[in-house]
Amino acid sequence: MRPGRSGRPTISAVTNQDSVSNHDSVSNHDSVSNHDSVTEQDIDGAGEPSTNRNGADLLIDTAAKHGIDICFANPGTTELHLVDALGRAEGMRTVLALFEGVVSGAADGYARIAGRPALGVFHLGPGFANSLANQHNARRHSTPMINVIGDQASWHLPYDAPLSSDIDALTGWTGETRRITSAADCEQAMIDAITSATTGNGNVANLVVPADFAWGEVDAAAGLADAASAATASPAAIVPDKAAIDAAAEFLRRDGGALIVGGARVSERSLRMLGALRDSVGCGVHLSRVARIELGNDLPNIAELPYFPEQLSAALAGVSAAVVLGREEPVTFFGYPDQPSVALPAEADRMVLADASADLEATLELLLSALSVDPEQGEVTERSGPVPEVSGPLNAMTIGQAFASAIPADAIVVAEAVSSGAGYRSQASAAERHTLLAILGGAIGGGLPSAVGAAVAAPDRRVLCLQADGSGLYTIQSLWTMARENLDVTVVICANRIYKILEVELERAGMAAVGQAKDLVDLDRPTVEFTSLAAGFGVPSVQVDSCEALVAAIEEAGRTPGPTLIEAVMH
Amino acid sequence: MRPGRSGRPTISAVTNQDSVSNHDSVSNHDSVSNHDSVTEQDIDGAGEPSTNRNGADLLIDTAAKHGIDICFANPGTTELHLVDALGRAEGMRTVLALFEGVVSGAADGYARIAGRPALGVFHLGPGFANSLANQHNARRHSTPMINVIGDQASWHLPYDAPLSSDIDALTGWTGETRRITSAADCEQAMIDAITSATTGNGNVANLVVPADFAWGEVDAAAGLADAASAATASPAAIVPDKAAIDAAAEFLRRDGGALIVGGARVSERSLRMLGALRDSVGCGVHLSRVARIELGNDLPNIAELPYFPEQLSAALAGVSAAVVLGREEPVTFFGYPDQPSVALPAEADRMVLADASADLEATLELLLSALSVDPEQGEVTERSGPVPEVSGPLNAMTIGQAFASAIPADAIVVAEAVSSGAGYRSQASAAERHTLLAILGGAIGGGLPSAVGAAVAAPDRRVLCLQADGSGLYTIQSLWTMARENLDVTVVICANRIYKILEVELERAGMAAVGQAKDLVDLDRPTVEFTSLAAGFGVPSVQVDSCEALVAAIEEAGRTPGPTLIEAVMH
Repeated sequence: MRPGRSGRPTISAVTNQDSVSNHDSVSNHDSVSNHDSVTEQDIDGAGEPSTNRNGADLLIDTAAKHGIDICFANPGTTELHLVDALGRAEGMRTVLALFEGVVSGAADGYARIAGRPALGVFHLGPGFANSLANQHNARRHSTPMINVIGDQASWHLPYDAPLSSDIDALTGWTGETRRITSAADCEQAMIDAITSATTGNGNVANLVVPADFAWGEVDAAAGLADAASAATASPAAIVPDKAAIDAAAEFLRRDGGALIVGGARVSERSLRMLGALRDSVGCGVHLSRVARIELGNDLPNIAELPYFPEQLSAALAGVSAAVVLGREEPVTFFGYPDQPSVALPAEADRMVLADASADLEATLELLLSALSVDPEQGEVTERSGPVPEVSGPLNAMTIGQAFASAIPADAIVVAEAVSSGAGYRSQASAAERHTLLAILGGAIGGGLPSAVGAAVAAPDRRVLCLQADGSGLYTIQSLWTMARENLDVTVVICANRIYKILEVELERAGMAAVGQAKDLVDLDRPTVEFTSLAAGFGVPSVQVDSCEALVAAIEEAGRTPGPTLIEAVMH
Repeated sequence: MRPGRSGRPTISAVTNQDSVSNHDSVSNHDSVSNHDSVTEQDIDGAGEPSTNRNGADLLIDTAAKHGIDICFANPGTTELHLVDALGRAEGMRTVLALFEGVVSGAADGYARIAGRPALGVFHLGPGFANSLANQHNARRHSTPMINVIGDQASWHLPYDAPLSSDIDALTGWTGETRRITSAADCEQAMIDAITSATTGNGNVANLVVPADFAWGEVDAAAGLADAASAATASPAAIVPDKAAIDAAAEFLRRDGGALIVGGARVSERSLRMLGALRDSVGCGVHLSRVARIELGNDLPNIAELPYFPEQLSAALAGVSAAVVLGREEPVTFFGYPDQPSVALPAEADRMVLADASADLEATLELLLSALSVDPEQGEVTERSGPVPEVSGPLNAMTIGQAFASAIPADAIVVAEAVSSGAGYRSQASAAERHTLLAILGGAIGGGLPSAVGAAVAAPDRRVLCLQADGSGLYTIQSLWTMARENLDVTVVICANRIYKILEVELERAGMAAVGQAKDLVDLDRPTVEFTSLAAGFGVPSVQVDSCEALVAAIEEAGRTPGPTLIEAVMH
């Protein structure tokens, strides 16, 4: 079935066309003097800023009134009145991106640090489509996000104009969708979207805005009263009932009991509780796919479940009773021949104590109480750091270790480096205290945009992005927004010049990258010069090829306001 | 509703887990020695290339056997066996892209020049999502395309692993979808996809390939017999019946009769027939949204309908009886306040003689015959060229005119430059003979990838890409594939450093880009240095700022094998 065509008016073969009633108004635009082309003359006689209040104003003002003060955007003609409204809105900062995947990834990174959603503004179906990969990641992160997607004017949509498409099919792929039904509806629709986005730990919420409802006039006073209570009252925290808590406690007391924790966020307090639980009860405690976590040498070191299926199964091999908290039971990232999808032993008992919508901290409080564990036992008295010094060439292990050793205190780390990130992950708990944003959905290109959003959310913190070269190229346009907004981001490109994970997986599967298959894996023909790309987007850069030089470059970047890209060439 | 979750196994709170039967096989991968990370050691003991024939082989071989010999790809782990099969396939050239929007745009450009589909290979839902904008364009172009989308192993899908999603929602957005049901099904599925893609003028066809059916073994002889007739027999050309032709002829004989032609392709012969019709019958003839057309000073100059609604309505104001051929009745690109969606006068009679699936050339033959017009009358005896020389600064009109004057004979032009393309469009029929690929869907970022595909399809022709700067940044990764494949592409970046069309539309609507609204329009903070971006992707480049220098640079690039990027700075 073709999208966007249902309801299209059909034209009978030989009839008068009767659906258009305002033909006489065609010639009342008199500012265009050349009928064949767009010329400089077209923009003479530019108008004044509009003064009437319209749906776009109402939409943006409602968001601002409810504490949303950042809008990442890549707008087009159907969003003109949103652009105009953003231009005049008070209390709403707008940040332009050159590609929609940057918009969605930045909104994801922003919300994970700020704890509240940003707006993302997109141009119809194709524009929103460009954002979908990072929408997928945001969904996996339980990130609160509000996508504002411009659509054709409601009466224009049935004509299936070139840019029309079934937007709802795309928004439905990633979250709930609210389609605005009038200019006046813009207030309630935004409130509904905020409520949807902020329920549980967070959700992706979509608002489709037909252009005529953006430009349609509203009452001058609309939306200017006090904030409606619907959106400001935080939804009640979701916690398991006592029976479930007691059942979980019983599991963890068993020989082979284990707690598997994942989800949107593991706070410092949650991490300390996990450490206390592990040390007091003696059960296994595993982190599995956490979107935001505090790490560092003054916090308990809780092991993360590994990526590859045989490693994952091995890590959980001794578990007889598993409590899963904040996510579903762990499964392998992909299916492999002769490997089970489910990582826990078949004979193990298991329960999902609470899924991704749960309040993790409150649930852990209840669990520790049921187990008579003092949360304060999670205090770390002996620091595990510092990260051992490392020198010489940069490879899959040393690059991450050198990176970890150079993390300044209170930094934010964004890591999108599957094959080059191992050294960082193994040393993260010995590093200075930092916040890690992971990219959980596996959709490629989340790293650089998340770093943009994190830096916008926390202008007083340094953001370090450990970025694989292959995945960094999907949303490389992020660099321009870093330069434009002068964001304090240090980008470390792990330049191994190959889709390493593909090579590894081919060889694990008993195949070799030869011939044209090698051409689908190697990125060194030609070499991508990241320092040139950075210069093109206005970001200062440096190339390094040793651990010592990488550490020095990260330290120098930390002393320099604004972004720096470090191309770390691996051997 | 969340994607991918229907059918997910539920885990009861406290039970034995019984759905996994092959837990014993977990430890039979012994090549991994480090359970915490991916290291160089993981890839020791690399396997030999596989020799058994599997579904992936069958899929690729079936495509090759039916004349498909190009595959644009950005694969991942679920496509490992497709990568391996492509590595060994005979008669199939694979071209890697760094971003999936390049894959889809290149496949679109390739098929429009080659006249047959390419394969595009994508990594699950998020990877395919990145390709959607150019899938939208391809759908609007009626381009034959076959998307091969890897999915989780069929038995792994219900577990909702991180990269799982509702792929069918995305493929349904752009075309028909065939989900492969077994390894042996790969042959018939590919034949079905080819048939779907090549029906009418072309369609986007999607093949979803669960990983286990790609790696599943098939008979050694499967698919090696002669090509099945289903796919090699071209579908019969779709032409209107005699009654419709006669009705159309009657319309065109009327005072105020007009033919509006659009669709996938207007061939040289079609263009000559349109010229003969116009000159013999005296009716209006308008081109409206043609995906591929031949242009130049030895062909009739048929006017193209303009973009803006008031210009479009004005161009059709005198029409009393319209015959629409190869597309639907023209509507405005967007809806505007006080503008009709439909461009033809309300009182005009109108008929759609044949839609986008029609055989345009055959239909025109019938129409000319009904009107007793000799197709040969379309011969142009007096050439309209050359393009007048133009000098001085580059602006919205001069840049396109300078470009048009420098087009070498038999070139392919790809144009994605709404506000900077006017000068080219106004002079295209005075230029040397060339083929124009337009970007009809309005999805941004189709230009550079289409140029990649066109150059792969026609290695003996120079491809010129007239590319706006703003839209060029959505799929800038195209440059790397141009360098890698040493494609003879000359990219001219129209560097006005602003989203000009947004500024124009704001001012047409009586608004001004001020304050933050200006920040959403201007691209000059910082300036994007396209010459640096080109260097980063391995493409030689030059910056020019006058008409003379632009013409000289295009001529120099034409003498230089491989790609060149020319950043044309506008004033």
